[in-house]
Amino acid sequence: MKIILLSGGSGKRLWPLSNDIRSKQFIKIFRRPEHCVPMGSEPADEYESMVQRVYRQIKSVDPDAIVTIATSKSQVSAIHNQLGEDVGISVEPCRRDTFAAIALATAYLHDCQGVPADEAVVVCPVDPYVEAGYFKTLEAMCAAAQNGDKKLVLMGVDPTYPSEKYGYIKPDNRHGAGGYTFTEKPTREKAEEYIAAGALWNGGVFAFKLSYVLEKSRELLGTDDYHALFSGYASLRKISFDYAVVEQETSIEVLKYSGTWRDLGTWNTLTESMDGNMVGDVRMNETSVNVHAINELGVPILVMGARDMVIAASPDGILVSDKEQSSYIKPYVDAIDQQIMFAEKSWGSYRVLDVEEDSMTVKVTLNPGHRMNYHSHERRDEVWTVLKGEGRTIVDGMEQPVKPGDVITMAAGCKHTVIAGEGGLQLMEVQIGNDISVADKKKYEWPL
Amino acid sequence: MKIILLSGGSGKRLWPLSNDIRSKQFIKIFRRPEHCVPMGSEPADEYESMVQRVYRQIKSVDPDAIVTIATSKSQVSAIHNQLGEDVGISVEPCRRDTFAAIALATAYLHDCQGVPADEAVVVCPVDPYVEAGYFKTLEAMCAAAQNGDKKLVLMGVDPTYPSEKYGYIKPDNRHGAGGYTFTEKPTREKAEEYIAAGALWNGGVFAFKLSYVLEKSRELLGTDDYHALFSGYASLRKISFDYAVVEQETSIEVLKYSGTWRDLGTWNTLTESMDGNMVGDVRMNETSVNVHAINELGVPILVMGARDMVIAASPDGILVSDKEQSSYIKPYVDAIDQQIMFAEKSWGSYRVLDVEEDSMTVKVTLNPGHRMNYHSHERRDEVWTVLKGEGRTIVDGMEQPVKPGDVITMAAGCKHTVIAGEGGLQLMEVQIGNDISVADKKKYEWPL
Repeated sequence: MKIILLSGGSGKRLWPLSNDIRSKQFIKIFRRPEHCVPMGSEPADEYESMVQRVYRQIKSVDPDAIVTIATSKSQVSAIHNQLGEDVGISVEPCRRDTFAAIALATAYLHDCQGVPADEAVVVCPVDPYVEAGYFKTLEAMCAAAQNGDKKLVLMGVDPTYPSEKYGYIKPDNRHGAGGYTFTEKPTREKAEEYIAAGALWNGGVFAFKLSYVLEKSRELLGTDDYHALFSGYASLRKISFDYAVVEQETSIEVLKYSGTWRDLGTWNTLTESMDGNMVGDVRMNETSVNVHAINELGVPILVMGARDMVIAASPDGILVSDKEQSSYIKPYVDAIDQQIMFAEKSWGSYRVLDVEEDSMTVKVTLNPGHRMNYHSHERRDEVWTVLKGEGRTIVDGMEQPVKPGDVITMAAGCKHTVIAGEGGLQLMEVQIGNDISVADKKKYEWPL
Repeated sequence: MKIILLSGGSGKRLWPLSNDIRSKQFIKIFRRPEHCVPMGSEPADEYESMVQRVYRQIKSVDPDAIVTIATSKSQVSAIHNQLGEDVGISVEPCRRDTFAAIALATAYLHDCQGVPADEAVVVCPVDPYVEAGYFKTLEAMCAAAQNGDKKLVLMGVDPTYPSEKYGYIKPDNRHGAGGYTFTEKPTREKAEEYIAAGALWNGGVFAFKLSYVLEKSRELLGTDDYHALFSGYASLRKISFDYAVVEQETSIEVLKYSGTWRDLGTWNTLTESMDGNMVGDVRMNETSVNVHAINELGVPILVMGARDMVIAASPDGILVSDKEQSSYIKPYVDAIDQQIMFAEKSWGSYRVLDVEEDSMTVKVTLNPGHRMNYHSHERRDEVWTVLKGEGRTIVDGMEQPVKPGDVITMAAGCKHTVIAGEGGLQLMEVQIGNDISVADKKKYEWPL
């Protein structure tokens, strides 16, 4: 099957593990099934993120599935780092809601990947916490969109309680068989009524032939051309796919999924889905009850006599919260004005270890064979000390091999890059200057 | 007055703020009185440690007080760093209980500081949490030892409840006026009985003329000579001053102190004595009740809906504990096998920022005008990048001035040191080698 995963924006609800540039779907918090952990791997490899979990589930249901991720530029590095280079990415220049995102990704498949207009595709969120049956349903939806007589195929999730948070798909008996009406977030009484009448939760999953959305794009956005959509993206209508397409459509089929279906958007729901209650170096005494602790730091967390709490520590900060209270986290995190201390890049990752007024020290990890951009800074000098691995540096066009202990000094203005060898490479970068900023970076053509 | 402060050993009960080399008395946790905070000082300067608090209290009662601290070698750096160079230190080569410690400090005053044998001195713990009246009582005790007719003057603390944890000084009416008996940790019923009979808590404070303890030293240890005591220290009798001296003495006077008197040995008692409930970057929502949080890290702690908890974060780790549970911390901390991540030295401090298999990165802060030992390492190379301040390095005898951004590389075997200028100096040290250890250090004579 062909599948488009919608990868949503940054979120602060899972601070300190998510932040402005690190979305919740990339937090490695789920224990991998044992057969998926490579021999001799590091302890951290025992865990996978939401996006890795979903990708693995898709591939186990359909090893030939072609996956395209619709997301913003800021997530591209993390996606390649976590899923490898094989996955397709439709980059949204900015956020314009789901209709524009799906239109752009559809045009990307058609124009850039050469997928014929009469082939079906299924679109779903990148981060549902679900069972394998969910992905079997996606396959069935794709088949129904390909071979059935309806234009749009939706997923209805078998409701387990009259939730006030979800959308409902109700069979519309007034108009005879085949019609549906859609309602968002009803009261509990209404929800009970809907469920009694056979309504399902709206899974936010859509299957259709490319031609269907290409036509909607022409109608609503004036074009179905990928490059036109991409270059004019910022001025496209900001409208949801549900509102623009689903709620107007009369030719709809709904396939039902019965099974676990959770939105892991808060610490409370996320910890419910963890297999153990500790990730990282956590020691908990026996008087601690219903506590989940996740530690991304290199030093231990000791928990004694805590109850109903979530504790999370990352290079960005430390959360100690009652589980229920944790859903009110957003304004507190918004009030934290802090620079990003950790980021995944396509070439590896960096972690800020020390910030002084006129210096910053950053640990840089390059994945095997990867390299930084060739770049310079105007207002800071940099010093690299290689910690681990071998590789090559290029400084103002001069290439040289490097090994642990080697020191490379780069004055402001000097162009530089580093390329990791087969074993990867780690270095300590000390930045010195009185106006250090991530914005102070000029990129150049690759020099070789 | 002349005062000997007994500075006890390392403790793990206040982990992660205390550890094997950082004792609880050096944790900066008490808000300084406002008039004691220098203008333009850093936020951290608003807080003082137990030893700083006691030293300040002594000096405000008696500006001419001569203070000597009896302690182990491992605390000398922290004491000079927190109290300056004026304070006398009697270094115990190892721990041999209080009698040997007091005998050594007394001989130090007599032989090294030239204090005449007929002068009185008062000995007290370095870390009582008390009011100014306590130090007035110390003065009165010194005067009584100097001018009175009793050989030994003790402090009796006015008991506020029948504690089972303390020692009691009971007026011994059987033998007529002037005799006392001593009891440790009675049952509650016994304690009530003692208090009804006029008993006081034993404050662990002793005043005497030097000659008194010099004589006891000759009797019990065979010598009162400082150098003999020092060089034979490891084989001295391990016995407490209370048992060896106080309980055998019949010529005793007891002075009473009525006021706050707390042993801040556990997180529970320590947090009760804090002026606010947050130190460092801590944000707490309004649903948190009876929570104390101390943050020594550079990133925020967010606390939501916690109750009756102590939260402490340092470079060594993070504690999240119910206050009552926190008194059972010791075995859990003993089980943490971790290298020291932060230490105060006489010349400044260091903080380990990153540990890899074959490298370690350490941020080094030198106080103004201070310098490291001249030293070398056999099994590691080092790279210094100066972050802040100016100074001089000496590498294999070659001296050179250094400023921010300068890089100094030192291969294994190379002798090196750095001297901070008037503004102090900070540098990032990267150690590279496959057997990095604090033991791998050879010291040399100062080269200039």
